[in-house]
Amino acid sequence: MCGILSIFDHPDAVALMLRGMSYLQHRGPNGAGISAFYNGVHDCIKGPGLVDEVLPPDVVTKRLKGRKALCHTRYATTTDVNSMQPLFAEIEQAQVALAHNGNIPFAESIREKMKADHHWFLTNLDTELILHLICESKAVSLVGKIKDGLKSLKGAYSLVLLSDQEMIGLRDPKGFRPLIIGVLDGAYLFASETCALDTIGATFVRNVEPGEIVRITSAGIESHHFDSIENCARCIFEPVYFTRPDSIQTDNAERGARSFSTLRFELGKRLADQQRANFKLDIITGIPDSGTPAGEGFAFGMGMPHRNAIIRNHASGRTFLATNKALREEKVRVKFNVVKDLVRGKRWGLVDDSLVRGTTSKTTVAQFWEAKPAEIHLFIPCPRVISTCHHGINLSTMGELLAVGRSIEEMRQFLNVTSLTFLPLADLHEIVGGNGHCDGCFSQHYPEEVPTAA
Amino acid sequence: MCGILSIFDHPDAVALMLRGMSYLQHRGPNGAGISAFYNGVHDCIKGPGLVDEVLPPDVVTKRLKGRKALCHTRYATTTDVNSMQPLFAEIEQAQVALAHNGNIPFAESIREKMKADHHWFLTNLDTELILHLICESKAVSLVGKIKDGLKSLKGAYSLVLLSDQEMIGLRDPKGFRPLIIGVLDGAYLFASETCALDTIGATFVRNVEPGEIVRITSAGIESHHFDSIENCARCIFEPVYFTRPDSIQTDNAERGARSFSTLRFELGKRLADQQRANFKLDIITGIPDSGTPAGEGFAFGMGMPHRNAIIRNHASGRTFLATNKALREEKVRVKFNVVKDLVRGKRWGLVDDSLVRGTTSKTTVAQFWEAKPAEIHLFIPCPRVISTCHHGINLSTMGELLAVGRSIEEMRQFLNVTSLTFLPLADLHEIVGGNGHCDGCFSQHYPEEVPTAA
Amino acid sequence: MCGILSIFDHPDAVALMLRGMSYLQHRGPNGAGISAFYNGVHDCIKGPGLVDEVLPPDVVTKRLKGRKALCHTRYATTTDVNSMQPLFAEIEQAQVALAHNGNIPFAESIREKMKADHHWFLTNLDTELILHLICESKAVSLVGKIKDGLKSLKGAYSLVLLSDQEMIGLRDPKGFRPLIIGVLDGAYLFASETCALDTIGATFVRNVEPGEIVRITSAGIESHHFDSIENCARCIFEPVYFTRPDSIQTDNAERGARSFSTLRFELGKRLADQQRANFKLDIITGIPDSGTPAGEGFAFGMGMPHRNAIIRNHASGRTFLATNKALREEKVRVKFNVVKDLVRGKRWGLVDDSLVRGTTSKTTVAQFWEAKPAEIHLFIPCPRVISTCHHGINLSTMGELLAVGRSIEEMRQFLNVTSLTFLPLADLHEIVGGNGHCDGCFSQHYPEEVPTAA
Amino acid sequence: MCGILSIFDHPDAVALMLRGMSYLQHRGPNGAGISAFYNGVHDCIKGPGLVDEVLPPDVVTKRLKGRKALCHTRYATTTDVNSMQPLFAEIEQAQVALAHNGNIPFAESIREKMKADHHWFLTNLDTELILHLICESKAVSLVGKIKDGLKSLKGAYSLVLLSDQEMIGLRDPKGFRPLIIGVLDGAYLFASETCALDTIGATFVRNVEPGEIVRITSAGIESHHFDSIENCARCIFEPVYFTRPDSIQTDNAERGARSFSTLRFELGKRLADQQRANFKLDIITGIPDSGTPAGEGFAFGMGMPHRNAIIRNHASGRTFLATNKALREEKVRVKFNVVKDLVRGKRWGLVDDSLVRGTTSKTTVAQFWEAKPAEIHLFIPCPRVISTCHHGINLSTMGELLAVGRSIEEMRQFLNVTSLTFLPLADLHEIVGGNGHCDGCFSQHYPEEVPTAA
Repeated sequence: MCGILSIFDHPDAVALMLRGMSYLQHRGPNGAGISAFYNGVHDCIKGPGLVDEVLPPDVVTKRLKGRKALCHTRYATTTDVNSMQPLFAEIEQAQVALAHNGNIPFAESIREKMKADHHWFLTNLDTELILHLICESKAVSLVGKIKDGLKSLKGAYSLVLLSDQEMIGLRDPKGFRPLIIGVLDGAYLFASETCALDTIGATFVRNVEPGEIVRITSAGIESHHFDSIENCARCIFEPVYFTRPDSIQTDNAERGARSFSTLRFELGKRLADQQRANFKLDIITGIPDSGTPAGEGFAFGMGMPHRNAIIRNHASGRTFLATNKALREEKVRVKFNVVKDLVRGKRWGLVDDSLVRGTTSKTTVAQFWEAKPAEIHLFIPCPRVISTCHHGINLSTMGELLAVGRSIEEMRQFLNVTSLTFLPLADLHEIVGGNGHCDGCFSQHYPEEVPTAA
Repeated sequence: MCGILSIFDHPDAVALMLRGMSYLQHRGPNGAGISAFYNGVHDCIKGPGLVDEVLPPDVVTKRLKGRKALCHTRYATTTDVNSMQPLFAEIEQAQVALAHNGNIPFAESIREKMKADHHWFLTNLDTELILHLICESKAVSLVGKIKDGLKSLKGAYSLVLLSDQEMIGLRDPKGFRPLIIGVLDGAYLFASETCALDTIGATFVRNVEPGEIVRITSAGIESHHFDSIENCARCIFEPVYFTRPDSIQTDNAERGARSFSTLRFELGKRLADQQRANFKLDIITGIPDSGTPAGEGFAFGMGMPHRNAIIRNHASGRTFLATNKALREEKVRVKFNVVKDLVRGKRWGLVDDSLVRGTTSKTTVAQFWEAKPAEIHLFIPCPRVISTCHHGINLSTMGELLAVGRSIEEMRQFLNVTSLTFLPLADLHEIVGGNGHCDGCFSQHYPEEVPTAA
Repeated sequence: MCGILSIFDHPDAVALMLRGMSYLQHRGPNGAGISAFYNGVHDCIKGPGLVDEVLPPDVVTKRLKGRKALCHTRYATTTDVNSMQPLFAEIEQAQVALAHNGNIPFAESIREKMKADHHWFLTNLDTELILHLICESKAVSLVGKIKDGLKSLKGAYSLVLLSDQEMIGLRDPKGFRPLIIGVLDGAYLFASETCALDTIGATFVRNVEPGEIVRITSAGIESHHFDSIENCARCIFEPVYFTRPDSIQTDNAERGARSFSTLRFELGKRLADQQRANFKLDIITGIPDSGTPAGEGFAFGMGMPHRNAIIRNHASGRTFLATNKALREEKVRVKFNVVKDLVRGKRWGLVDDSLVRGTTSKTTVAQFWEAKPAEIHLFIPCPRVISTCHHGINLSTMGELLAVGRSIEEMRQFLNVTSLTFLPLADLHEIVGGNGHCDGCFSQHYPEEVPTAA
Repeated sequence: MCGILSIFDHPDAVALMLRGMSYLQHRGPNGAGISAFYNGVHDCIKGPGLVDEVLPPDVVTKRLKGRKALCHTRYATTTDVNSMQPLFAEIEQAQVALAHNGNIPFAESIREKMKADHHWFLTNLDTELILHLICESKAVSLVGKIKDGLKSLKGAYSLVLLSDQEMIGLRDPKGFRPLIIGVLDGAYLFASETCALDTIGATFVRNVEPGEIVRITSAGIESHHFDSIENCARCIFEPVYFTRPDSIQTDNAERGARSFSTLRFELGKRLADQQRANFKLDIITGIPDSGTPAGEGFAFGMGMPHRNAIIRNHASGRTFLATNKALREEKVRVKFNVVKDLVRGKRWGLVDDSLVRGTTSKTTVAQFWEAKPAEIHLFIPCPRVISTCHHGINLSTMGELLAVGRSIEEMRQFLNVTSLTFLPLADLHEIVGGNGHCDGCFSQHYPEEVPTAA
């Protein structure tokens, strides 16, 4: 997962990008970068860490100038600055900055083949491989090279290329990852989600469609398309977990401008509708912040109050060394605190957005038990994650997935909850709406061939 | 308002204080400081800003050592490090670090009188004035000097003094500000609120009572008292606004271990009980984070769903320069984003914890209107703030208070809401419970003489 | 030792002080602070460390404003910010910032007496004790209180007090520590040395005389004096070691505007004149940076070339952990590197400014031997330091002084040099010139009573 | 100009590199980077600025681990982190980190040709072009690919490649830029200069010879060579200016282990020998730090004392905003201060290492005149720089060179000195010694074709 935001030709380009990026940090908390063109010269600051750490506003706005800027937040554990984004590339046509959200399933084998063919790579990124394919094309224009070079590439790639003359945003033909178009003071933007537009006062224009290549120049906006026509395979895990609740689900026109908060509320409510008869609960809470909308929907569906029983701390999450054993182990919880009097003696429904490895949930549940509830019933408003993702979501290896090799009862025991309940896949599809989603992580049915899971 | 946390004789003293402080930052976001004794030597780091900025854990734990530590978070606009806390004082008996939460109403005139008497001050703090009084006493022990020196001092002072030999925590006889006792691994702590104990795994022992002077030494815990017996005047604004929702209301034994989250839920519910018949609403939200418990209670009381329609951003709140006028003015909202589809066309109930100057509420309401709700009804689960505080809460000057010189209708117009409703003072008292609160800010009746308002 | 710089009523006050301070860092590398008055409000930033670390120019100039500023560099090992300077004091007459250079020999006993008398201290500083004495005076004006309060105080104190209305600089009647007056664009300054004036383009006006109290207001400059008339006792170690070579010796009018570089050149030359017949040397170097002027003078006096054989590194002096034993021990020398081909096989004369504890010299000599010189003769252009200082120079305890309890031969063996030669005290006096110096560290004869050495 | 330092297989690799880099900062004050391999994984921190700013030791040593590390200091004005070194490259054989010192004269045209051939570049660096050529080779081993790929490449390239299995250091066949081999605790190092070995206690082994490719593996050291045999063209500007004085001139065996300090002393002495009869001077100083050795040599040759009349400030060189006009203009000199009494009324000889654009010299001379010397004679111990460098030294454009289009008299007037004297080229060659230097900047005769000067 990654976040992208770019703007073409605005006097506040760099300051706007910095602001907007902070709303895409949930898509990439491990690295951040920003590129800008000023008087035709590209400059870039990037590195591992949170946006605020890597890109202090005073430092960035002092150094980076110009009316065109592109930024990226990165979800990855590597820290080598050589593999941070945006990439810079000097190609035949221009100097460009690139940012990529997605994943190429067979990248490793393509890369090995290219290396055997005496090519080389300066980064670990799929982005560079994509650049390879674009540049090898004999087409003349950048759009032409993209259409030509990527025509047979499988995988997920929402991509933005920025030069001093043009800004190009594109989605792969299956449309795995989102990309939208916005406008502010006449300047166009590309963004991963609408919340990044909101925070800088920009207006949502429309989706970049799967397979579409949108080109922005000083002359305006052009739309091009990959020649291949493919079935949509938008990631169904984005609405369930990754997108911010205040972003709008732009991919499903039939649902209108529905926010993901509303979508998740409906998921929670549907689960309540199915399970109402089966549970006697006293009180319900969503695990903050991502589980709150589904929690509120579940509470509404159960006809019961929702209470924020888990208080999130806004100050430091930094860790430190301690000689105190108890401190190091169970009691070390800086991030959350449980409202004890609310919890004691009650039959609780806890709602989380999803269940992947289960380690965070296990810790939260343990902390919750300390406040001595009578029961803890855990509700997950989506199916079990039974397979890894090959298109851009970091769902760990098969071995780390809690649902792999475990029955629901075994999962319940691992998490130490009174009961554990999921929403069926059909309900998830119905509520997310529209056709053409990839639900490989829930179903193990992928829309295109993927490598054998490790 | 300020936050205090201290510990006597624990091997992880400094690391524990740093962690716990982050849970008291809401009481003092403008400054932070920590003192520690190591091999009998006092060292201190303090300055203006947030805990994480002023006290980077790696820097602090590298420099400060020792088993006794005291920290302070500060609510004030001055930045002069000379007036930050903890103070250091070398007195006849020992070297001590001091931290203070409260306010001395007639401090200025006492100070002027002392200066005319050829005394002087190295800080702007009431704390130094208190120190003056303590030191002038001819009593021998530190506890004796405190009892003697402060016997005729009016005002609010919860105070902790830490030396290498003892740790003393005390509250003024009226008990305006809180102070509690905790224990961890056999080491005693003082804290402003229970949440700071929770986060480090410490256990709540009991309240420091109004007028009590609690002394901790290696021999254990002793209790002393000021000779004067006075009526309690605990601040009623603490439960309404300042304390964290996950802290426990320790001052009212009859309510059991009720959290402030629950207390505020009840305030919201009571307001709903009173107003249910008067309003036709579609949906309700508390303004995060402080308005959420009352919002949930209000929604519950109204028999309607509560929805988190205002999403708080966890990344940067830093500002920056922009040439774009619109950006600078209305559209600059980094902190919050509104979930648009939830809001559009609905009759909303917004619940905030209190209404002081009204400027933040006005901005939030304006941002909410942009998402085009049908109506915005604002509910405040406490009375109007009609007078300033002289005992430690920074409630601005009289002229800045929204309720001063304005009818409720004028307040409604200023805030641009459809309606504006408050909870009566009697209901607040009943729900907070117990006798002996200062409600001067709501009633203009103070428990002791105060200066004429500016 | 400490450095002081202040200015009264200049539009660039804060920026000028920051610049000038960097030229006083040699007098106080352990702490730094700056105070300024803006619209009558005092603000202050201070802390342990180097000027650049504690006072980043962008942070300071953003926060501190105003036309009156005072700064201080501090020589001390304590890091408690409560005992950093400038101090702030609110006294009867005004709010003032204070900075002090000097030492009160019997401070501890005065302090103990005051504490027994129910006084107290908020810092460990002699400055606070001086403030005590000033404030206890019943005189009306600040100058009057100074004259009255300090009349019987023994010790070294060059002091600057800054308020929004006046700036006062004074030296104790014996004039142990320097203080000078400068002017820039009509605004007066006080400074410890002339080099701080040079770097900001200010002009040297004159010395503050021993026992003089100079008062600057918007009306101009006034001169007052302590009533007591005492013999001068200017510190003779200042010209030998502490002052920067580019500062001017302002205290000895008969020598004209002689720099300390020239003074030290003369010391080196005199030593050469005395020893020329006794040594056969090939080449000479002063140990940089402080030994260079004397080294050049010694080389000139010997009629031999001076060569910079020891190269100082301008980059990092920071240390780090290493598992490599050799690295940790002898070979770890970031600060200096020896020019090996220059050294090999030669009979070297090394010249250092003085010899106190001998530890640095021992290390430098060891590093020099590695380059395989034939001989190393060490020349010190001042006498042996045989006693501690009680008036402001941090000369360690008696036990740490190399010359205490050791013959010159024993010192030579400790340092591992071929020979070790000092300049006699009479020559030092003659070259420094003027009457009235304190040479207690060289002679154990102090100009006033001092505590028994520890 | 750039600095390189690398080590293969030492437990303190990262800490050692950080220390050593600080001694190569003079070769590249504009950027710094370090790569390390740990458990086969490459990590890298790099960015614009000084070593201490970009690579704080505590941050670096916490993040980078491993026994193999490579670092680079960079001389360039661009700040884009994409074009900082070390580069990372994944090639057929391995993952490698690369660092380069040098310049490819026709890089632009090669790059354009490659781009026209549908290649692309991720950086602006010649290093990437070199990597291109290496990777395109069909040879199997990395050494084989280097020999084959670079066989027809013209230009200056001292290059180090580090992988988890091997470390390769090479110089172009003409040997424009230096590269040496060191050893510490059995681990081999490559470095640009010997001073970097000194500071970490490593021993100089030998030069990498022009055209030599040295390969280090766990099996030991191997030597390979480019097939082409070419005349040496070592840069003559390195000994004159760029190398640190404490580094050893390793390229001229006949001179023994002569330091550049000694070499520059001899240059100054030779100039004195030539000019002794022509000048009546009172006193001589080298402009610190780079002009000091030649200054001492010149003084020795003239039979006159050398005096450090210009004191360098070790604290902040940071700039700041000022409203004071005089301050902004002439008087702003943080870096140097002149010892005024030394200068006044004397006929001075100033010695600088070289004269390129003349702007710094002009400022220093102006500052010197303010101290009122009688005369200022400027001596330069090398010829006039009349042409730009195409092999790695940043000598500005032709238009910026002071000597281009100006007679010596016009240069003298520009600098405002009494006289201006240079050392002839033949003397420079004789003293530097050995055959085979590139003196294009002094003679406009280059050892290979270069682009037409801009």
